Amino acid sequence: MTLRYDDTFMFRDALDQVHGLDPALHATLGARFADVRAEVARRTAGGDYGFMKLGDQPALVRRLQQWRTSLHGRFDHLLVLGIGGSALGAKALLNALKPPAWNEWSAQHRNGVPTLTLLENVDPITVHETLQRLDPRRTLVNVISKSGGTAETLAQYLVVRQWLEHAVGEAAARQHLVITTDPDKGALRAIARDEQITAFDVPPDVGGRFSVLTAVGLVPAAVLDMDIAALLAGAAAAVRDADATELAANAAARYAALQWQAQASRAANVHVVMPYSDRLKEFAEWYRQLWAESLGKKVDRAGREANRGPTPVGAVGATDQHSQVQLFIAGPFDKTITFIRVMDTADMLVIPSRPELPAELAYLPGKSMGALLDAELHATREALRSQGRMSSTLELGTVDAFHLGQLMMFFQVATGYAGVWYDVNPFDQPGVELGKVLTFKAMGRAGY
Amino acid sequence: MTLRYDDTFMFRDALDQVHGLDPALHATLGARFADVRAEVARRTAGGDYGFMKLGDQPALVRRLQQWRTSLHGRFDHLLVLGIGGSALGAKALLNALKPPAWNEWSAQHRNGVPTLTLLENVDPITVHETLQRLDPRRTLVNVISKSGGTAETLAQYLVVRQWLEHAVGEAAARQHLVITTDPDKGALRAIARDEQITAFDVPPDVGGRFSVLTAVGLVPAAVLDMDIAALLAGAAAAVRDADATELAANAAARYAALQWQAQASRAANVHVVMPYSDRLKEFAEWYRQLWAESLGKKVDRAGREANRGPTPVGAVGATDQHSQVQLFIAGPFDKTITFIRVMDTADMLVIPSRPELPAELAYLPGKSMGALLDAELHATREALRSQGRMSSTLELGTVDAFHLGQLMMFFQVATGYAGVWYDVNPFDQPGVELGKVLTFKAMGRAGY
Repeated sequence: MTLRYDDTFMFRDALDQVHGLDPALHATLGARFADVRAEVARRTAGGDYGFMKLGDQPALVRRLQQWRTSLHGRFDHLLVLGIGGSALGAKALLNALKPPAWNEWSAQHRNGVPTLTLLENVDPITVHETLQRLDPRRTLVNVISKSGGTAETLAQYLVVRQWLEHAVGEAAARQHLVITTDPDKGALRAIARDEQITAFDVPPDVGGRFSVLTAVGLVPAAVLDMDIAALLAGAAAAVRDADATELAANAAARYAALQWQAQASRAANVHVVMPYSDRLKEFAEWYRQLWAESLGKKVDRAGREANRGPTPVGAVGATDQHSQVQLFIAGPFDKTITFIRVMDTADMLVIPSRPELPAELAYLPGKSMGALLDAELHATREALRSQGRMSSTLELGTVDAFHLGQLMMFFQVATGYAGVWYDVNPFDQPGVELGKVLTFKAMGRAGY
Repeated sequence: MTLRYDDTFMFRDALDQVHGLDPALHATLGARFADVRAEVARRTAGGDYGFMKLGDQPALVRRLQQWRTSLHGRFDHLLVLGIGGSALGAKALLNALKPPAWNEWSAQHRNGVPTLTLLENVDPITVHETLQRLDPRRTLVNVISKSGGTAETLAQYLVVRQWLEHAVGEAAARQHLVITTDPDKGALRAIARDEQITAFDVPPDVGGRFSVLTAVGLVPAAVLDMDIAALLAGAAAAVRDADATELAANAAARYAALQWQAQASRAANVHVVMPYSDRLKEFAEWYRQLWAESLGKKVDRAGREANRGPTPVGAVGATDQHSQVQLFIAGPFDKTITFIRVMDTADMLVIPSRPELPAELAYLPGKSMGALLDAELHATREALRSQGRMSSTLELGTVDAFHLGQLMMFFQVATGYAGVWYDVNPFDQPGVELGKVLTFKAMGRAGY
């Protein structure tokens, strides 16, 4: 059940002897790890690493299951209003745990489980067209904002609330709303309290981009009938694995250390995560926020100007072999590639033959499509290796709720470790404040 | 009708006087431009820049319009089999020119125009589930491969062909197929010829990532009832604009020159394209292939090892302000941001008020959502500027077929110019050959 992590191809001796990490780092990073681990433990005790506890939330799971039962049959659609960390987690869950194009299946095939639509922007065309399309009488709206005052989400809320009230009336509209926000503070909490709207808490010690395993992600997961207990069990397993005291045995900490060293000692500023599985395409987008916002920092922990942070890039294999791999293999030596291999499709879908097939296609029939996908992963990794390009591989048995929870928590813990290796605070995002202030000023908000 | 391009914030004097391009580049690049332009003209005459002619294809437009009429009412779904340049263009067209979630609208609301599903991977779960979902009796399948032998697409073809034949029989299955491939060579052309399947040509002098305005993109566009004549007219306008002899008056060439200089003289290896419009999200993905595969090269034009190429990144505003902007504003000075501003939404969708709104939200009601989106673009650009970050802005009046054709051709021509500035061949992709060979070997293809 442990996630397998293979970092062989990060090191010079497995590549071309020129590029890649110095194998001596095994020892030097290993020796530093006790300090890094102690620092994480100190910050955890100080309340910074709240997300590490999210594997253990039995009361929330029970409440969500009961609440979900109480909705039974009332809604065909879930409409989530949220942006950034309030949207990317739910998108990744939908992509991983439901069949492709979930919303396009018939209600019968979905067994009455709702579709999921997310509004993550204030593009008026998207908002308008989405509200034209959905039937408000059959739509449950989940408004998500950790602070309770996110401009984009609250603007959406006002538009959507009016849409609901026009369709079902003021009193009934409240029964179409569920709010996910801070337990005490902010405008959304005030609205929930004043109007007796069902609300779930975002724990104050869990940042937005670490919140997929709080109510932020679990409310949509519950409505969509996902196995939230298994998601959390997977997360708990990842936290246990990431507690190992030896760096060699601690994949999440090692992943963080090697990505950091790739940038620090080999100028690899671009970190690509490339699952060979369509089910993890949105996971890669979720990772992009986690890695970019956590490690992209102006100052180090001592407050010195540092302008640190890798640029995360998402890609999907085999698709992006025909878009990005030319650059990965031939461009500057400024990247790491993290492959994610999912083992459950290897024998799926045998390619049929047909009469008079051109000879050049004769190699395909009788092979499985899953074998082709896996062969492409191995070939791409080997091609990169032969050109001195650093890569590592994570292996998952399958993509079910347990393994997805495990994978997400693996990356969250790795990000927590990376904050220490990079010597930055992975839990703030001061760089976006100026843009917010300038927006408020342009919109005429009092006090700006 | 000309695309407006503002490069003020690429230069040091508009930023913090420290970061950004040297304003002296206006003169030095301008002086070099006659040579660059002459080189493009030489290579065009030599047949390299075939995509520049795509604005003028009246015979193809007529044939597509007639063919489209002949399909009338027979199909509810278009299923495209293609990967890389055979898929990204159609995705960008769908996203830009149809309402969001096009496939989720009722057939009535779609006026009987088909849905569009793309298979761009050999993930067996995606392929299996997609074929479960679609009704083969009502599905038209467009198989797209420039070479006619792309492993992923041909594997899909064999599976999908069987699915069609099981449902409608062997003879009728041919009427559900349309092939887009080389006019003479390759397995797909042989199949089309031998079985009298409708086929359209990919011009041999147009590379896959430059092929959206050939039959590769135009067959899906025609089936989806898009205005293909307007798409091409926009492209023709962009080619005319990009013929200007002065660099200061030639936005596409200047865009290419400044992106190149940002990398060459300021180590900006990451080129972000960030439309503030949901309609251009897939356009940014299309750009990623165009820029990465064209400029990511191991050798320069003289064959010397160079390992050149920027890493293109797609982002969407305002959404990614809550995911990537923290990194853009605070991380390393290794990026350029190209904003795309669309002018037609500025006054759309007034945000309503409601009773007892928390005071902190009082600034929202009465403003339009479009104004909020535009204020966020301006605020983010100004925040980046104040932190010494290079950006430029492209402005579009709207996103219709004409403007999209113009925007796509702008970037294609810019890529052609960038090939000269970067001194690489923008039309090959030798780096992916080794991976292909290794895949063929693993799959047991004869001769590998």
